[in-house]
Amino acid sequence: MKSYEYSQRRRRSHKSGSSGLVSMPRREAISPDKFNKLKINVGICGLGTVGTGTLDVLMHNRDIIGARALPIRVTHVADIDVQHAAAVLEQYNLADIKVSSTWQALVDDPTLDIVVELIGAASAAHDFIGAALSAGKSVVTANKDIMASHGGELLALAAENKVDLFFEGSVCGGIPIIAAMKEGFAANNIIRILGIVNGTTNYILTNMTEYGISFADALAEAKRLGYAEAEAENDIEGHDAARKIAILASIAFNSRVKDDMIPTEGISGITQWDIAYAGEFGYVIKMLGIARSDGQIIEARVHPAMIKKSHPLAAVRDSYNAVFIEGDALENAMLYGRGAGALPTGSAVAADIISAARNIAHNGRARWGCTCYRSLPVKQLSETKSKYYVRLQAIDLPGVFAAITAKLGEQQVSMASVVQKRSMEDGAAEIVLITHEVNHQHLHNALGEIAALECVAEIGSVIRVEDSEA
Amino acid sequence: MKSYEYSQRRRRSHKSGSSGLVSMPRREAISPDKFNKLKINVGICGLGTVGTGTLDVLMHNRDIIGARALPIRVTHVADIDVQHAAAVLEQYNLADIKVSSTWQALVDDPTLDIVVELIGAASAAHDFIGAALSAGKSVVTANKDIMASHGGELLALAAENKVDLFFEGSVCGGIPIIAAMKEGFAANNIIRILGIVNGTTNYILTNMTEYGISFADALAEAKRLGYAEAEAENDIEGHDAARKIAILASIAFNSRVKDDMIPTEGISGITQWDIAYAGEFGYVIKMLGIARSDGQIIEARVHPAMIKKSHPLAAVRDSYNAVFIEGDALENAMLYGRGAGALPTGSAVAADIISAARNIAHNGRARWGCTCYRSLPVKQLSETKSKYYVRLQAIDLPGVFAAITAKLGEQQVSMASVVQKRSMEDGAAEIVLITHEVNHQHLHNALGEIAALECVAEIGSVIRVEDSEA
Repeated sequence: MKSYEYSQRRRRSHKSGSSGLVSMPRREAISPDKFNKLKINVGICGLGTVGTGTLDVLMHNRDIIGARALPIRVTHVADIDVQHAAAVLEQYNLADIKVSSTWQALVDDPTLDIVVELIGAASAAHDFIGAALSAGKSVVTANKDIMASHGGELLALAAENKVDLFFEGSVCGGIPIIAAMKEGFAANNIIRILGIVNGTTNYILTNMTEYGISFADALAEAKRLGYAEAEAENDIEGHDAARKIAILASIAFNSRVKDDMIPTEGISGITQWDIAYAGEFGYVIKMLGIARSDGQIIEARVHPAMIKKSHPLAAVRDSYNAVFIEGDALENAMLYGRGAGALPTGSAVAADIISAARNIAHNGRARWGCTCYRSLPVKQLSETKSKYYVRLQAIDLPGVFAAITAKLGEQQVSMASVVQKRSMEDGAAEIVLITHEVNHQHLHNALGEIAALECVAEIGSVIRVEDSEA
Repeated sequence: MKSYEYSQRRRRSHKSGSSGLVSMPRREAISPDKFNKLKINVGICGLGTVGTGTLDVLMHNRDIIGARALPIRVTHVADIDVQHAAAVLEQYNLADIKVSSTWQALVDDPTLDIVVELIGAASAAHDFIGAALSAGKSVVTANKDIMASHGGELLALAAENKVDLFFEGSVCGGIPIIAAMKEGFAANNIIRILGIVNGTTNYILTNMTEYGISFADALAEAKRLGYAEAEAENDIEGHDAARKIAILASIAFNSRVKDDMIPTEGISGITQWDIAYAGEFGYVIKMLGIARSDGQIIEARVHPAMIKKSHPLAAVRDSYNAVFIEGDALENAMLYGRGAGALPTGSAVAADIISAARNIAHNGRARWGCTCYRSLPVKQLSETKSKYYVRLQAIDLPGVFAAITAKLGEQQVSMASVVQKRSMEDGAAEIVLITHEVNHQHLHNALGEIAALECVAEIGSVIRVEDSEA
């Protein structure tokens, strides 16, 4: 690796346009000559996995980046663990870069054009982003928690300060889904988003499907390989996916959706039988984040679901992520890639830094900010409609079909098929129902009554079937 | 559909910054108030399929687009068939929009901020784009022929005039692949691109694979359904794909690749036997555009190839397109969607118009132009290496394996497997070879000698196997 080329820090203020410096209007600030000399100074806060990955990408590919766009230098780093930060910088021959222990030091550094928030901790990240935007610095973050809970407020603050707040790394790692939603599909009325946006659950379900192992074994394997954290609940129960879907739905439908508005359901109840039966019906089970809108109301939910084997999302294996988008002009599209990891997420963060740098060089900052121009209600779970797969054990077979279908009928739950599967050792039989599209509350009312039937031993699984056109 | 809201045309010059109007520096030109009133005037040249699709998207979603970004109005249309243009406009309640018969009229219209080139004919399109850029207008085109052959020159002209030249619609219709390559993956050293970039050939191969029909029947069906033109050679022989791969390779490797540098091979020689044998080996046959570089030399080619069934591209069916990108930071990613059609391509063209409009509103034009900062050589076909599948008919079985493998060995072609398949009616046997990665010229030298063997009746198919890591 070549040594990092330092050049002297130049004190530049990007507020010059508003400081009365009319002799050098900002549009004209960058003559070709000046442009060639312009270097963008970047400060990174947090040298954890993604911070180190970002540094790695920027350093490893600095010649390409400089030639494609413009030279970008990391000149200041902040980390609560100063020793750790210094050790990381040492690896990249950057030992003489300034290291601070607080984010405030980056905000106070007038030589920084762009600061990168990779702290993790929500409260500090929020304070840091707010202070940096207010100080007139463009901000890049990969923090989905902050963007899901405070994205609107912070994007408004960025617009107010005429700087950029980019957050591509916050959703699906290396996949440029935010840019696609904000720009590539900007002419579309977005109808539905279906996303595999959590790598851990996709890895577990893929292994359960391909190797026939149990959820517990697949989870243990995922933990062993580092695809799942020791405390995996955030992934397994869908909370991580809900944050990403909140961000994507807000952009898609131009109305703020927060993660706590999104009902989630985890994958721990999925059994090998469900996966096998799904296969017989032509489906695979995926953990999906779903958001749709008719322009009047938004529906968003996160749960395991059956999708057709021929659906492009069905081929998304292992820990990969993908987002499938349906729009009135594009028909449908899918973006697929690595949803996590130091380098893929670093790739997205670095791309955002490059975009922010281009905008500074061309004085085109704040090209898009918050696009939530309306406020649509979000559907309650009880109001949602889906097709459902229900697996249950019945004891007394002869009368059971009639009893079950009667309870379903009373709740206006219409059936697509009722099939008897394997016989159990105790003489009970397993029955699988697939419903037509029915109201969530109606189904659960019916299932409550079915569970109380004497001939029914247990309702094993209730899984949505997402095979309808948007 | 609500009636299109006209407001008076305002004469605005985007050259004000260079005309000495220092009292209103361009960076400050758009106050929030002015921004809300700013409307972008667009002229469209060519109301064929894509032109009409673009108009449809802009009109149908004008409220969403106006609220997300800024109001965009089509105010002037040019088409060689003025009557046809008037009839199209009538359908959108735009009958009083100005219609001209020449592109020059759009260039000469000082009220236009953006012009859209959807002419088709290469020479006129080239002249129009050049004149419009020189006149200081941002240009959007969906013309892959022009961008593949003259992209570098036109992008340089755009940069010189500080305007945008966007061409998302020229490659893969509704898929935002150009933006992803230019911005989303900008921090990556791109290693390889594998693309299904021609919908017609993918449709044909999908039907051959799924229904076991012949190439001739699949082509006839594609023509019947409008997926293939009457003169399908441009698609079938890979020329259309070569233009798209030329554009993508140029962006990926920052070095101009023209379509005539790319060797192409069509799919008309693919038989049902090849597809069946591919399946037995765990492959599907896809028409691929491939570009790779080690930073010293570029390799680009278009041909049918076998890829693993588990590869994400294998799940790209029917007339869909997809581009699979391998980069040193992102690992890999895929963008999938509709590669053609009035509305999907209109979606991409309209997105480009919105981006160009945002850049005008925020004075951030020319954020990226041509990124070909270097000039790498392109490999000759004879120098390329691949794994190959070879299907041949042999007459005299006992000695044939030895004779064939001897000829291959003489040319340093090493084998992965040799398998005898079906016996022919005339007593001959079909043999399938799969090679390790070998030099193209060596293989063809060996095949020349093998074809001359007395025991060999015919070499049926030679198809590359693309299952290696980049």
